[in-house]
Formats: sequence, C-alpha cells, structure tokens
Amino acid sequence: MLIKIPTLLIDSLKLNNNISKMLKKTNKSKCKLRPHFKTHQLIEIGEIIKNQGINGITVSSVTMANFFAEAGWEDITIAFPANVNEISEINDLAERVDLNLLVESKDTINFLSEKLQYKTGIFIKIDIGYNRTGLPPNSSEIKEIIEIISSHKNVYFKGFLVHAGHTYSAKGKSEILNIFESSKHKLHILKQNYINNFPDLILSYGDTPSCSLADDFSGFDEIRPGNFIYYDVMQYHIGSCKLEDIAVAIACPVVAIHKNRNEIVIYGGAVHLSKDHIEADNNFKLYGYVVDLKNLRWDHPVNGVYLSSLSQEHGIIKATDEYINRIKIGDVIGILPIHSCLSANLLRNSFKII
Amino acid sequence: MLIKIPTLLIDSLKLNNNISKMLKKTNKSKCKLRPHFKTHQLIEIGEIIKNQGINGITVSSVTMANFFAEAGWEDITIAFPANVNEISEINDLAERVDLNLLVESKDTINFLSEKLQYKTGIFIKIDIGYNRTGLPPNSSEIKEIIEIISSHKNVYFKGFLVHAGHTYSAKGKSEILNIFESSKHKLHILKQNYINNFPDLILSYGDTPSCSLADDFSGFDEIRPGNFIYYDVMQYHIGSCKLEDIAVAIACPVVAIHKNRNEIVIYGGAVHLSKDHIEADNNFKLYGYVVDLKNLRWDHPVNGVYLSSLSQEHGIIKATDEYINRIKIGDVIGILPIHSCLSANLLRNSFKII
Repeated sequence: MLIKIPTLLIDSLKLNNNISKMLKKTNKSKCKLRPHFKTHQLIEIGEIIKNQGINGITVSSVTMANFFAEAGWEDITIAFPANVNEISEINDLAERVDLNLLVESKDTINFLSEKLQYKTGIFIKIDIGYNRTGLPPNSSEIKEIIEIISSHKNVYFKGFLVHAGHTYSAKGKSEILNIFESSKHKLHILKQNYINNFPDLILSYGDTPSCSLADDFSGFDEIRPGNFIYYDVMQYHIGSCKLEDIAVAIACPVVAIHKNRNEIVIYGGAVHLSKDHIEADNNFKLYGYVVDLKNLRWDHPVNGVYLSSLSQEHGIIKATDEYINRIKIGDVIGILPIHSCLSANLLRNSFKII
Repeated sequence: MLIKIPTLLIDSLKLNNNISKMLKKTNKSKCKLRPHFKTHQLIEIGEIIKNQGINGITVSSVTMANFFAEAGWEDITIAFPANVNEISEINDLAERVDLNLLVESKDTINFLSEKLQYKTGIFIKIDIGYNRTGLPPNSSEIKEIIEIISSHKNVYFKGFLVHAGHTYSAKGKSEILNIFESSKHKLHILKQNYINNFPDLILSYGDTPSCSLADDFSGFDEIRPGNFIYYDVMQYHIGSCKLEDIAVAIACPVVAIHKNRNEIVIYGGAVHLSKDHIEADNNFKLYGYVVDLKNLRWDHPVNGVYLSSLSQEHGIIKATDEYINRIKIGDVIGILPIHSCLSANLLRNSFKII
C-alpha cells in the first residue's frame, strides 16, 4: 500500500497489549480504568478500547465529550475546569449521558448549580503538586464547594480528581513512584474527612508515567491515563515504556536527499507531528526517532538517525552514511513521535490501524 | 457575542492593510505578489486577498492546492519539493489549473517528466543559504535538470525559486536586508546564464521578514511571503512588523484563577496555539502576548502579562496583581500568537473575521 501523505500508523497489536497490561493492573487493584480519550480522539480506537471491557471515559473538552457521546459512549468525565461559557452545550450533554464535570472554585460551582438542568456529577480538582489547576488538599474552599453542591439538586458530589503532571519532569522511576505514593497518602487523608457523609465518593488519579510504573492502584478508585495506549519517545525517555511498546509511527514520504550534509527531507512537519521536542546541550533537538517500515510495521529505531527539525510541512532527518545511501525519493519512512497525543490530534483525518 | 471555545479572531482592517502595504511595494517594483496561502488556509481569507487583485497563489502541499483549486483559484505554485507519491493527485490538479511544481533533483524531474500528463511549470529550488532544501546556485545539477525539462513535452522550465528562511534567525534589520541583497545578487548571476534560452524565466523569492523590511523588489519577478497578512509575535521580535500590525488574536475563555501564584488558566492550549514559543535565559518561555478584547478587537498587549505555558488544552497566563484582580471566570481574553500559521492551521474550524 502506497503512503502518499503523512499518515498516523497505529499498530493494533501493540495498542491492545498496552491496554491489556493496564487493565490487568487495575483489575487486580479493584480500581476502575477510565482512559483519557484526548490521546487518540478516534471513534475506531474507542471501539478497540470498548472491546476490552471499558465503559467510562475521560475527555478534555465539551467538544470531545460531544464527539464520543455521538459515538455511543454514555459515561464521560470532562477532566478540564468546567468552562461556564459552554453551559448550553453542557446541558445538552448532561441530558444524554452520565456526565462528570471538574470544579475548583466557588464561582464556577455557584454558576453550575444554578444553570445545570440535569443531574451532573462534580469532581473537585485537587492540586497534588503539579501547580497547574486545582485546590491544595488543605484548602478551606473544598468544604465550601461541597456545601454548595449539597444544597443544589442538579449537582452531586462525585469525589476528588488529581492529575500528577509533575511526573513528566521527574527524574526517573523512583521519583515518579514517590509522587504516586505521596499523592495517595494526601488524598487518602482528604477522603477520610468526607467518606462518612459521602460513602460513594471516589478518588480519581491521572497521568501516564505513574500509572505505567506503579503496579498496585489500591487506594484509588479510578485512574485516567491516556497516553499509555500509544506511548511515545517522551514516555520512553521518562521511563514509562519500552521502545517496543510505542504503538504509533507517522509514515512520511521522502521528498529530497542531501548527501553532502547527510540530511533527508520528508513530507511531514509541524502540522503533522507538532513542535514538541526533547532538547539537550549544544543545540541538539530531537523531534522523533526514525524507523524502517515493512508492511507498515516497524522494529527498533535506526541507529544514529533522527528527526532534527521541523517547519510547517518539512521534516529534516539527520542520517548516517549507511542510511542515506539506501534511501530513495518516494520511500516512506516512519517517525516515532515525541508526543503522540499532539501528533494524533493533527492526523485525525489521516490514520491507518494496522 | 459570547466566545465559547478558542477562536481565531481575524481583524479585517489590519489584514487588508498588511496586504495593501505589500502590494504597493510590489506594484512599484513591477514584481508579482504570489502570497503563500499556508498561513491562513481559508477560502474566506482567499477571497479578501483576491479582492485586492491577486490571482496567483503559493501553497505547501498538493492537498492545499486541491483545496484552493476547488475554491476557484487557477494559478497555483506548490512551493514544496514535489512529492512523487502523489503523482495521480498532481495530474488531476494539472488538468484543471496552471500548476507549478518545485524540483531539486534529477530523480524527481525524471519521474515527473515521464508521468505528468498535462503541461506543468517547473521551478528549480535554489538554496540561498537556509540549507533546508534546494541546490546551491553553482550546482552542476541545475543545468542537467534544465536539460531533462527541455527534452520532455509536459514540463516546461519556469525559473528559479528560493526561500530565504535564514532571515528568521538573523539579528536585526540590517542582517535581513543583507540576506535579501546577497540573494538577489546570486540569483541575478544565475538568471543571466539562462535568460537567452529561456526569456520568460522568473526569479521567485520568499520569506516574510525580508519582504516586510525591503522596499524595492526590482530584480525579482515575484515574491511569495505568507505570514505578512497576519504577522505574529515572532515576526514582531524579528522586526518584520509593529505590534499593531498583528491581525490575529486567539480568543480564549478563562476557566480558573489562582491569585496565590498570579496565574490564570484559559481554555486554549497546544491544540489551538501550537507549541511554538520564544525562549530566553532562566527558563523564561513566551507562548503569546495577552490583549484585552473589546467587541472582539484589541489594542496593545497588557503590560507584564503573558502566556507562559501550554498543555494540550490548558494555557497558563502569568498575570500582574492589577490584571488578575479584574479578570473573572468566563471572561474571554485574547492571545497574540507566537506563530500565526500554526495557530491558524489548528483553528481552521473555529475562526471569526471581524
């Protein structure tokens, strides 16, 4: 099959294996897996995940919730601070599906409590050290928000939700597992304060690095990793996965070859891969690893060959002599992406499940 | 009008002004303006540009060429090394429009000469110092490619095309204008070698920084800037435009406010703005300036307030006390993007021309 334009290749064997491995751990820990669908944003991948027994999902926007509701998903958490400007779209959703929203301020919960027309679950977002969104576990506002929830009929208190995004900048497995354990400890204390009044309250935990490295999730009621289905070069660098776990590669045609400077130009740029990269000293930037494609499947990256820069549509590959001498114009090569979620977002109209 | 989701606002006054200014210079220089449509990728913006008298355009992919051919454009240059894997799509296009392709190798021109079914113009891409694609002006392959073109009936030699992308890393106006002048000099020599045999051959020059800073384009037959219609924070930093020339802002709803660390969280992330940023020492990263929106128009950026990081859907704004105290959940604020082409690519389904 001839690849004509940059195309996201999704290896369904690796994909299914990544999902099974996570499910095995959550089942053993009696913890629900509610995968984050922002990673793939595809109906077809949703079906593969559903076939492994998943029925509840996480998304990061009302638009994405609506997209998957149309595809038949009925239990959806929007893990993003509720956007009050979309209240009419939220009400349309809440009428059709079991919807959970995220709140971290009295202003937002006051607005939602007044305006929501259908029963909606409310998670309070807790900041466990990432410092992006959420209230600290000791914030007095938590209690106030719960009181507001309790006094309105269309909202009910679902529990506490955290995303330990600081695992992405952690240095190695032990630091990541430390974040995981200390988060569990802090949230456990928080849960104890409210469990008597809210016996069904759940602790929901996110992030692919710690969910990949931890074996036992007991103490949490659900986890919401997203990236783990595909993984990518960033996750490999963090230590969340092995190279052979990476389930996506972007197939890109070769359009120019410059042997004098050991560079190959591919059709595949920032509008296909995103500008996410890994940096090191001496101006070294890594935009992706290069793999040989055989029947659209791949093995380990080619040694010493990598994607070194991106323009809007061009990618520049730094090549070894051996590699550049065997590549021809029109060949299709694979790129293991730095950040699979952003590449998948850009290639929603150009993918192949193999 | 309530902005519910991240939306690209396009100020038509600034847009028209940017186009007029460039056209005034090209008209005076008797040089054709063939704007690069990868910047906007919108039928509606194409119409505005057409209304100023433009009839030939530049694009960066066969897909984009096809998109604008469907919209009625009949004179299209694909300024990207011809992708041989799309030969059937290229033939479909060449049947319907005046098409120009870019070639920089004998392999590609041999393939195209055999496979093209309709008369197609061929530019030879010349590398004028950017070192991304193209042949050096003194390469012996140029003559060989022209000989191949001359001996086949469905290709004809259109001229030499350059993109001086190294102006983006130049330090200030004089270095950019030096690149412009030295490019003109080298290309003029190249043109002299072939003008007797090809009296219609043209020199086509690209890049927004030098086209914005130069006043006189005589010596070139056409220019192909793209970004100049919108500009952005990167172009402002390079010195290509004034802040008030930036014709686009991304409107983003406020979803969380953290006064304790002077941060505001907006619905607007890497999938809306792209990860392009400007870096400085001490880990400072700039992902966009912040503007107040009044009737969806804006003035200068708010002093001391900027977009400091992006996740997939979240943006984090570093705010002053004054600013954070006047912002509420649900307010809509404007972001002047770092790279308008990448933001526009991501927001093709969410824009407003005002």
